[in-house]
Order: sequence, then structure tokens, then C-alpha cells
Amino acid sequence: MSAGVVSPEKIASALGEHWSPRVIAEVDDAYVKVAKVHGSLAWHSHDDEDEFFYVLAGTLRIEMDDRTIELGAGDAFVVPKGVRHNPVADDECLVMLIERKTTLHTGSTTTDKTRSIAEQLRPV
Amino acid sequence: MSAGVVSPEKIASALGEHWSPRVIAEVDDAYVKVAKVHGSLAWHSHDDEDEFFYVLAGTLRIEMDDRTIELGAGDAFVVPKGVRHNPVADDECLVMLIERKTTLHTGSTTTDKTRSIAEQLRPV
Repeated sequence: MSAGVVSPEKIASALGEHWSPRVIAEVDDAYVKVAKVHGSLAWHSHDDEDEFFYVLAGTLRIEMDDRTIELGAGDAFVVPKGVRHNPVADDECLVMLIERKTTLHTGSTTTDKTRSIAEQLRPV
Repeated sequence: MSAGVVSPEKIASALGEHWSPRVIAEVDDAYVKVAKVHGSLAWHSHDDEDEFFYVLAGTLRIEMDDRTIELGAGDAFVVPKGVRHNPVADDECLVMLIERKTTLHTGSTTTDKTRSIAEQLRPV
């Protein structure tokens, strides 16, 4: 594979830890990340940042205060800034995310799943 | 499908015109776009903006001055700001793009394939 070409699904698939996003690309002031997820993350919101979810494999549910949506492989959804949400995967699921570099992946909520940007930037 | 959930590949597949990107999501100051491409776009660069390519289906070649890379389905690549490039698809290919809202998809080069942001924002 040529330098700089990445396979988001292959990288996500190889991750050993759930809910630990890893940066796979930098696009100006945004990061493209992948994660392997299973179970529930945490209710949180991002006051100033939208968050784009794209499901690479499996199924992801995003619970919000007023409704819940379900994303299958190949589906995408934007959680708008300020909207409280909780991602849930009943079975293991691989996702690609677009977030601003400033975005904290569990918002202002800190749990044992919270990972720093430095942790998310570790080489994959 | 729930409101706001989109399938980038299905939207791209339904497009009737090649090289005519359509915005499918807004993430802060970036647009997520899809396009159906075939043939060669145009040599161009974006002085101040990176451009993220993700191949949904098919194969895309990105020619650059010093090398050419090839992306299969599921592969991603960032063309860094300032790098002259020309996307080429020998067969029809579906792509998802992340670009800043300010990005002109053929850079400072205008060809008969150039589409305004207003055209890219038409409902899909």
C-alpha cells in the first residue's frame, strides 16, 4: 500500500481496546478517527462541535434525548453541537469519526473510557 | 431510515453526473461530500486546504507531481494543502470527500467539470 494510504476499517479492526479512538488522518482543523466499540460509551455533548459518525462494520445506535437512531454499515449521521447523545453498540462495531481537533470524545463527561488527544494520536 | 441518517454510497450511486460533488453533511466548517467519478478531473491544487478522499466503491488513482497512488474500496488518503493533484478513475468509482467549506473542488482551475458550492448543495 502506498505511503499515506490508509484503510480505516482495517485499522479499526486491529484495535485492541473498545471506545479508544485513534486518529488516522488530519484534515486542516479536523481529525478523522476510527474506533472499535462495544457496549455503551457515556451520555455527553459537545457544546461547540458537530460530530460525524460513519459505520464501517456492524451496527451503532445513537441515543439522544428525543429519539434514538440506528446506523448500519455504510450509514452516516451528524450529531449536531449541543445535542446530548450516547453511542451504544450491542455487538462489536467499527466506526469512522470526523471531529474538530478541539473535540473531547466524551465531551465534558469524564469516565474510565475517556482518552486524551495524545492517546488518540498514538501511531496505529 | 431515520431522519438525518444518510448512506453515502447509496447517494453517490444515484448521482446522474460524473465529477459533480454533492454535500451530504455539514460538520462545523467542513462539508462531507460524495461524488460519482469516471475519467480524469483536472490538475489543480488547494493552497490552504487539505482534502480527504475515501473510496466507497471502485478504484481511484490520484496523480501527483512526484508519485501516483491508487485507492481501492475502503481506502483513504489526504492530499495535503498545496500539492498539485489529478484524480483519475479508469472505471466508475464512488468517493466520499471531506473538504473545508471554502474549498473549490477544482482549486483555482476552472473547467467544464467545475461546480459551484451552490450546485454542490442541491438536495440529493
